[in-house]
Amino acid sequence: MRIGFIGLGIMGAPMVANLDRAGFDVRGFDLAPDRPGRTAGSAKEAISGADVVITMLPDSPQVEEVLPDIVEYGGPDLLYIDMSTIDPGTSRRLAERLRALDAPVSGGERGAIEGSLSIMVGGAEEDFARALPVFHAVGKTIVHVGPPGAGQTVKAANQLVVGGTYALVAEAILLMEASGVDAAKGLDVLAGGLAGSRILELKRHSMVAREFTPGFRVDLHHKDMGIATAAARDAGLSLPLTAIVTQLVAAARAQGLGSLDHSALLKVIERINSA
Amino acid sequence: MRIGFIGLGIMGAPMVANLDRAGFDVRGFDLAPDRPGRTAGSAKEAISGADVVITMLPDSPQVEEVLPDIVEYGGPDLLYIDMSTIDPGTSRRLAERLRALDAPVSGGERGAIEGSLSIMVGGAEEDFARALPVFHAVGKTIVHVGPPGAGQTVKAANQLVVGGTYALVAEAILLMEASGVDAAKGLDVLAGGLAGSRILELKRHSMVAREFTPGFRVDLHHKDMGIATAAARDAGLSLPLTAIVTQLVAAARAQGLGSLDHSALLKVIERINSA
Repeated sequence: MRIGFIGLGIMGAPMVANLDRAGFDVRGFDLAPDRPGRTAGSAKEAISGADVVITMLPDSPQVEEVLPDIVEYGGPDLLYIDMSTIDPGTSRRLAERLRALDAPVSGGERGAIEGSLSIMVGGAEEDFARALPVFHAVGKTIVHVGPPGAGQTVKAANQLVVGGTYALVAEAILLMEASGVDAAKGLDVLAGGLAGSRILELKRHSMVAREFTPGFRVDLHHKDMGIATAAARDAGLSLPLTAIVTQLVAAARAQGLGSLDHSALLKVIERINSA
Repeated sequence: MRIGFIGLGIMGAPMVANLDRAGFDVRGFDLAPDRPGRTAGSAKEAISGADVVITMLPDSPQVEEVLPDIVEYGGPDLLYIDMSTIDPGTSRRLAERLRALDAPVSGGERGAIEGSLSIMVGGAEEDFARALPVFHAVGKTIVHVGPPGAGQTVKAANQLVVGGTYALVAEAILLMEASGVDAAKGLDVLAGGLAGSRILELKRHSMVAREFTPGFRVDLHHKDMGIATAAARDAGLSLPLTAIVTQLVAAARAQGLGSLDHSALLKVIERINSA
């Protein structure tokens, strides 16, 4: 099976390596000429003759920019899989123009390198079935969650829970510290009970130590909270915690913390409480 | 070692059974005459001659009501362990009047029955050491987190994270459902990734099914959010998510949902979005 892969960034490059390793004939392209996995000289070259085209791009505008090429150079049986995180509405519109799946991922750079990504897939059942061998080469948890756009909605839901959990853990830490409690010990108790979470498991020590090396950058989470907010608005929903978490992430960015790990939400809530 | 145990409710009664089983000489008392484990006819009878007095009561007023008896009838070496969930300020004041530990628990009725509670302990190191055999009879995760009041602060931190996580999961469910996504499948993905939590693990199916049989009642969580809010105020902190979660729990109660499981926060956010 030939795959055209567009977008060879931190996530795309290792995904291409895993697709290569799984025996796919991959033609990678990126606008930057020096990216690993770049074997096609143009988008046209990556797309022409491909059975599947995958995009892994920063945001909707980049996806929409490459779309005319996919429509023009893609064959009649082409399946287009957008693995970028973009808003569900854009994914739904794409799927009206061509056979497409939205398949955003979670698991970060490590998941991309290890081929252990979680993949949330929206689109037609038959297209999902056809894409499964491709997904298995890059991911571990692969779930078809609904019609076009559904993958993006689940990713948005994921990001609102992740952002909110960081904020809750941050408030718990600040409450304990300000009350003279050993926050590290307190978080050990929280991690072992009903308050337990993957975030407490992975990040409680670095948060207490104020170590915010990314990881997943605040800037990217800011984009994702924008998607969650837009998705809620499109669905006609008022979501109070999502709203406030979105504002806290925006504040983090406004305070120049955009390139830190998203657990740096702690610094925003700390600054609210500082002279 | 003789233990006087006051408060034989859903939590206290099985804790007394576990203390009995561990070989302690327990004298249980409750104002209600028909409670299991009630072997003392009065608080005085439970307290007199005890090495350790434990209270497991609904809230601060009940603890403050029994305190004069403990002071009057307790011997000079008595160690008082309050395992109720009350506000940290009250626990600090108790510890000024007698040798006392605050040791609130999490793990609920099941944890009390199985003797697997998590116990968050505030107070002097030597008193903690003396109380350890008692704690081991009723709990599994036992952590000394700081000075008097520290146990209550950690419990408050726990409850704000738990309440907030329910609200976040509820918003994720509503976003997925309103967008035509299979929320159960979506939550399966969330549960396996960075959004994963003990609450997603235990409660996602019942929340999607709108089954809110307690479990831990909204009324009790309302009390606990009041404690978290008061603790934050005492510490001079502004905690934005804690504030909004507190309001959502208050709304649940105002809407007559007080006797449902605390995961019924979903219903409040659902009602915000209903005609």
